[in-house]
Amino acid sequence: MATDRTASATWHGSLLEGAGSIDNVGSGAFGPLDVTWASRAEDPAGRTSPEELIAAAHAACYSMALSHGLAQDGTPPDELKTSATVTFVPGTGITAVALRVRGRVPRIDEAAFLERAEAAKDGCPVSAALAGVPEITLDAALA
Amino acid sequence: MATDRTASATWHGSLLEGAGSIDNVGSGAFGPLDVTWASRAEDPAGRTSPEELIAAAHAACYSMALSHGLAQDGTPPDELKTSATVTFVPGTGITAVALRVRGRVPRIDEAAFLERAEAAKDGCPVSAALAGVPEITLDAALA
Repeated sequence: MATDRTASATWHGSLLEGAGSIDNVGSGAFGPLDVTWASRAEDPAGRTSPEELIAAAHAACYSMALSHGLAQDGTPPDELKTSATVTFVPGTGITAVALRVRGRVPRIDEAAFLERAEAAKDGCPVSAALAGVPEITLDAALA
Repeated sequence: MATDRTASATWHGSLLEGAGSIDNVGSGAFGPLDVTWASRAEDPAGRTSPEELIAAAHAACYSMALSHGLAQDGTPPDELKTSATVTFVPGTGITAVALRVRGRVPRIDEAAFLERAEAAKDGCPVSAALAGVPEITLDAALA
């Protein structure tokens, strides 16, 4: 069954002198959030950016994908701690995502965890959607 | 100059019975936000999902790209209202993003606006990153 998830944004003025906000999201879980070009390309100063939102999406999606793979092996994780760092180069685009995961997983050895962690990098739906990003890297280890 | 934007997530347990959260983001602009498989594939029940975060990223990025194009033409927008709807099919992935924009733009005709709106769909860095999404559509009009 397909699900649709929606967000809306408003922008006033030019890119460099104007400003915007992510007004709301369908779930109501967050927003409004201010965004500016400076928050994306310079100092965030407490404001979010498209790249930070993608980092949040990827960190969550990767965690889900890895938890699923581990559970399929009969070794669901006690805890996965994942971070995603998205690199943006103005004029070029989103050039890289660096994933980092540390797992507390009972009854698994490092090699099996690393195999599942690599598979989740490729199998996570957000990784697949981000096919236009030149480089997605993974640093994985048991905690 | 490149910028890095980071988010972190924690997951406990299996995909279907476990739960997670987006703990924090580098800017501090939002979080923690609960996520579960159900919030992604069934009823959000007030919780976000990777697809909703991508929708927010795309709506904001598209708005920025279009504001920039319009300003380059000497017709910066008074206001752009954009929504993005991301479709997720469990087992398949992210299958579509539907963008919708309504613009209040002085001294521009509909044809020129539509041309800029289409260019922003292709030129927005988030659109480019989402090259793995089979379909990105746009519904654009002057308000």
